[in-house]
Amino acid sequence: MSEVRSKAQLAKGAASGMNRLTTAQKNEALLAMADALLTEQASIMEANARDLQRGRENGTSESLLDRLALNSSRIEAIAEGLRQIVELPDPVGDLLETFDRPNGMHIEKRRVPLGVIGMIYEARPNVTVDAAGLCLKTGNAVVLRGGSAALDSNRRIVEVLREAISHTAMPVEALQMIEDSRRSSVDEMLKLNGLLDVVIPRGGASLIQNVVQNATVPVIETGAGICHTFVDESANAEMAARIAVNAKAQRPSVCNSMETLLVHSSFASHSLSVLTDALKAANVELRGCERTRKLIADANAVTEQDYATEYNDYILNVRIVDSLDEALAHIARYGTMHSECIVTENTDNAERFLVDIDAAAVYHNVSTRFTDGFEFGFGAEIGISTQKLHARGPMGLPALTSTKYTIRGNGQVRG
Amino acid sequence: MSEVRSKAQLAKGAASGMNRLTTAQKNEALLAMADALLTEQASIMEANARDLQRGRENGTSESLLDRLALNSSRIEAIAEGLRQIVELPDPVGDLLETFDRPNGMHIEKRRVPLGVIGMIYEARPNVTVDAAGLCLKTGNAVVLRGGSAALDSNRRIVEVLREAISHTAMPVEALQMIEDSRRSSVDEMLKLNGLLDVVIPRGGASLIQNVVQNATVPVIETGAGICHTFVDESANAEMAARIAVNAKAQRPSVCNSMETLLVHSSFASHSLSVLTDALKAANVELRGCERTRKLIADANAVTEQDYATEYNDYILNVRIVDSLDEALAHIARYGTMHSECIVTENTDNAERFLVDIDAAAVYHNVSTRFTDGFEFGFGAEIGISTQKLHARGPMGLPALTSTKYTIRGNGQVRG
Repeated sequence: MSEVRSKAQLAKGAASGMNRLTTAQKNEALLAMADALLTEQASIMEANARDLQRGRENGTSESLLDRLALNSSRIEAIAEGLRQIVELPDPVGDLLETFDRPNGMHIEKRRVPLGVIGMIYEARPNVTVDAAGLCLKTGNAVVLRGGSAALDSNRRIVEVLREAISHTAMPVEALQMIEDSRRSSVDEMLKLNGLLDVVIPRGGASLIQNVVQNATVPVIETGAGICHTFVDESANAEMAARIAVNAKAQRPSVCNSMETLLVHSSFASHSLSVLTDALKAANVELRGCERTRKLIADANAVTEQDYATEYNDYILNVRIVDSLDEALAHIARYGTMHSECIVTENTDNAERFLVDIDAAAVYHNVSTRFTDGFEFGFGAEIGISTQKLHARGPMGLPALTSTKYTIRGNGQVRG
Repeated sequence: MSEVRSKAQLAKGAASGMNRLTTAQKNEALLAMADALLTEQASIMEANARDLQRGRENGTSESLLDRLALNSSRIEAIAEGLRQIVELPDPVGDLLETFDRPNGMHIEKRRVPLGVIGMIYEARPNVTVDAAGLCLKTGNAVVLRGGSAALDSNRRIVEVLREAISHTAMPVEALQMIEDSRRSSVDEMLKLNGLLDVVIPRGGASLIQNVVQNATVPVIETGAGICHTFVDESANAEMAARIAVNAKAQRPSVCNSMETLLVHSSFASHSLSVLTDALKAANVELRGCERTRKLIADANAVTEQDYATEYNDYILNVRIVDSLDEALAHIARYGTMHSECIVTENTDNAERFLVDIDAAAVYHNVSTRFTDGFEFGFGAEIGISTQKLHARGPMGLPALTSTKYTIRGNGQVRG
């Protein structure tokens, strides 16, 4: 049997008893994991050094090497992340609905673990610990498949975590890691219906598209964000500039940053430069529509393709529109249903935007950068769902649960 | 452009405004649809007669022809089904969560339509109306793809419904039907990412497996049910017999009926015949394990394959087990996580069964036949989900919605 299938079977076997674990038992395992990461940090950094060495030999970019690198303070932060998950309320067992039927049946709907979660991700070893902590806290078994660039780090981290788990009530087989770094091991995971209950991809567009296109197991899609900010006729210019700069330039590499600024023509006629001057001061390259370029001489020309691009960089499209409707139509065409913002002092327009825009998070006078589990107060985040089924937007612990109906009676039969 | 793609695009265009429809507007459309079905019933029955004629020529079985057949009272029942959906509360807009963040952001999480739903089903024209009513009531556009055996009936029904919708605030393009009856039209639907938000299959195992195996669009899996009843040591024999007969024989063709009866050996030693006599009196063929056959001479021998079979017929496996654990292990191995029941007077065993069994619906002293949206009091049912993501068990109107976060502020930016 392949490594993938045999480890998934071990995970499924472990998952079957995990609905019975108490919150205290799960927290005890997470705390043991956090302690072990600190105790064993020397050996983890040793393994990490081998990954970094291999990366340098393969010509990996400095920014990727930086994501991959572990040091004492990073390992402490990772362990602290586990302790934070311990502090979060456990959603498993939560009573969501209860009702009595006329025939005397008493029905309850409660949260239960999803079962076995497959995580497919790239070369950040912190995701290994983070995903393990979130899945185990919610009573799920997890099969981790990280990027090959972090293989040595991940292998040692998982050894350390499993050793820690083995001294607790948590079944050690609930945490599995696929070491086979061939693409075929991902393909095999994607078809493990009956063993994996869901696959969650975390990473770049091509990783996510591979999962969406090839999985027969249910998927929670995370990822792409082409986010817009619409500055309406009545917008406060100073606020609009502040929000636009934050949405674009505070951290351009993430999915909730802005790619296109839409500006109402009436606003643009007197205050476009307030926005563009602030953006240029934040090192943002502007690509404007024809009307924008008449007002802002040094903006480059935007193309159709630009509107459909997630730059993840200090580049911004600027387009002047004549109405809220035109802005809505642009977003419906080019948006990825992630995060969208209107800056306006007109309440009717704000409400119309909030209702009409089809996205996970829609903002009025707030930067799109807040689409994040921590910023929403969830205390954790397994990812940001960009699909509409099961979970949408930032996913906290409840997104890692399913539900179960229990029905108690005294002999009821159907007539 | 293909019929499938062009109709899906029309549906998506219609869907974009449907979050704004009021409940009254949606109900008006459903009532107009119900009225039109009655007014136009002669032409619907004419079209249905062509389907029936073609079916007879093709040697279709009488039971399938009966499912396909429409008459005046069936059309009235279908129209009445729409009126019942009108009476149900509209989940769209429901406020699920609201919270204020320390920086002054006000966050709301509300139900919104899913968008465009693809329904793939077999030859029952009532599903055409039912699915249309449920999807439109929840503000979704729908692309229907029914079985070719009902093509003439479905085409006429959809014409009638669209004509009725065209006189209301509901966009007529929200209701689409694929007339291309080749298998390739289903395959095309399954890959329409970006146009369809979800595909829901309703029908036999091969239809559902084709959808699960080939869809890149998110799927809500419905279907297979290998359901068990475990009669524990302390069970009341009369109650156990009543529940077993109901679970097996009240309507064997449906997914929530029982396929295997597990009996504790202590109970079996004194009362197995109470169960088997009642089942035999209900025309059930028994297939027993060796220990069962020692007690019940006329039971046939059960095979491993039988335990994994959904009979949908008056056939039942009977297996004697020595403990609750053995029953749990059997169900974990052969069950399909649909509906499972324990009959016991022992509260501890009941609670253990309710917690440990991983299924959509778990019953104590109640027949599994109750896993049904109407029996649960939902007033409607789009199907019974057998997956763990998004919706599990009977799906009422809320299962046809997604959620959206709206965030209101006064210039908040991320630090």
